[in-house]
Amino acid sequence: MAVTTTVRVRYAETDQMGVVYYANYLVWFEVGRVEYLRGLGYDYRQMEETDGAILPVVEANCRYRAPARYDDLIEIEASPILLRGAVLKFGYRIYRAATEAAERQLLAEGETTHVVCDRELNKRPLPERVAEPMRRAIHALKHPAEV
Amino acid sequence: MAVTTTVRVRYAETDQMGVVYYANYLVWFEVGRVEYLRGLGYDYRQMEETDGAILPVVEANCRYRAPARYDDLIEIEASPILLRGAVLKFGYRIYRAATEAAERQLLAEGETTHVVCDRELNKRPLPERVAEPMRRAIHALKHPAEV
Amino acid sequence: MAVTTTVRVRYAETDQMGVVYYANYLVWFEVGRVEYLRGLGYDYRQMEETDGAILPVVEANCRYRAPARYDDLIEIEASPILLRGAVLKFGYRIYRAATEAAERQLLAEGETTHVVCDRELNKRPLPERVAEPMRRAIHALKHPAEV
Amino acid sequence: MAVTTTVRVRYAETDQMGVVYYANYLVWFEVGRVEYLRGLGYDYRQMEETDGAILPVVEANCRYRAPARYDDLIEIEASPILLRGAVLKFGYRIYRAATEAAERQLLAEGETTHVVCDRELNKRPLPERVAEPMRRAIHALKHPAEV
Repeated sequence: MAVTTTVRVRYAETDQMGVVYYANYLVWFEVGRVEYLRGLGYDYRQMEETDGAILPVVEANCRYRAPARYDDLIEIEASPILLRGAVLKFGYRIYRAATEAAERQLLAEGETTHVVCDRELNKRPLPERVAEPMRRAIHALKHPAEV
Repeated sequence: MAVTTTVRVRYAETDQMGVVYYANYLVWFEVGRVEYLRGLGYDYRQMEETDGAILPVVEANCRYRAPARYDDLIEIEASPILLRGAVLKFGYRIYRAATEAAERQLLAEGETTHVVCDRELNKRPLPERVAEPMRRAIHALKHPAEV
Repeated sequence: MAVTTTVRVRYAETDQMGVVYYANYLVWFEVGRVEYLRGLGYDYRQMEETDGAILPVVEANCRYRAPARYDDLIEIEASPILLRGAVLKFGYRIYRAATEAAERQLLAEGETTHVVCDRELNKRPLPERVAEPMRRAIHALKHPAEV
Repeated sequence: MAVTTTVRVRYAETDQMGVVYYANYLVWFEVGRVEYLRGLGYDYRQMEETDGAILPVVEANCRYRAPARYDDLIEIEASPILLRGAVLKFGYRIYRAATEAAERQLLAEGETTHVVCDRELNKRPLPERVAEPMRRAIHALKHPAEV
């Protein structure tokens, strides 16, 4: 039930080690997260503007397996993995896309934890029309046999 | 009358060519611009929050002379060069600071042009208490003999 | 003869004014430039690695017409506009893509000037197999009637 | 034995939520890490160039306590917390510096784990002249009474 988004590594994202700078994976996590929401027919801009719900990050973790390089085609897999009250957790896998020369390769894995807030940064539940499909996605993730 | 601010090149700012990525000079321009305002006893946050005046950029130019490298100590010289109605223009020079081994070196020069706006993005004059010292700085720049 | 590349505005690219931070347009210029080269069957990574030709920027200009906002779909039009010896100049137009509610809108225009260099940063001509189609593109740009 | 480095929040580092974008804390971690090494009389550039030792990140974690805002003065505390073979772990605390109006406030905490490598990305031990003072710093951290 994860949504996959594809981006190409920009020159701006590399560093002098010749690989993607480590903080940029968190930017890719965000891109994947937003596209996941869009896949639910729900855009984050709308959630901020219409519902007044924002998703500040309270924790982010990333484990780096292999370096992404300039011009690589990157696949970002994102999926919610926990929704309990105002706490929402996403999981991510970052891959280098398969090429003629090489198979798809896992580059990084990670999680971000968010607290759903209103504009005044008070906790609030996720708008139900996005919460409901997420709960189903999380359930399906844990019980793959039922899908 | 230019104000000089010092920053150190971050690993994040380099690219795989082993030099600072070209867009980051515009970030340094912004750092120099803000410190110039602070030197007038005026912070930009306050200008946004209290006076409701913002300075969106309408044009930016940069000429690159020599590459900045990781860990270089960078001197940002910033100064207003034009203030006419709502139009404010800043000039910048970016240097690698002198070291024991080498003299201070010019790395880049540029300008940014801003239109002073209120929160609704309507043109408005610069708050007088920041406009007045800027006009003097610009005058002094053009008539160095009088200073 | 310009090549158009589409990107979506990332949350990371916005600033607290609620619009895309001005330096990020130079990142988009780079994305457009690279995709232009790819459209010629030529990737920049290959040019760096195989031909040993790099394209450091010596000048960048951007004129901002209207702000890009979070989640906007951005169209980057890039095209070479000058190739003389080792000097290569690109022109760019940045648009917000048309939506159901609004027509395509010009957000920014700019140019970057590059000097083609070898790995030791000595001037060298552009590899002929990329120079030749560029010269034709530049010619077509100046003589649209002939196309 | 932590080293504290001070940076000021740049406009470029904020996002449209009006706070510092979450990936930028990892940039600050890097700044603190580098300044820690410099405090040992050891600069990272030199380590890369002279010793051929690089410190790719294999894991990064950050827990966000309170948002950093534009123009805040940020104190980055960095310290090695583990050195075992080629594995080196740093810990960080990010604070908003005390002002006349408010006490110093913890904004984020985190860790990065590195594997010391040579240029070919083979594991190697940390150069002894930087390893030795780090081991002492880690020992002092665990046995504060002895200091």
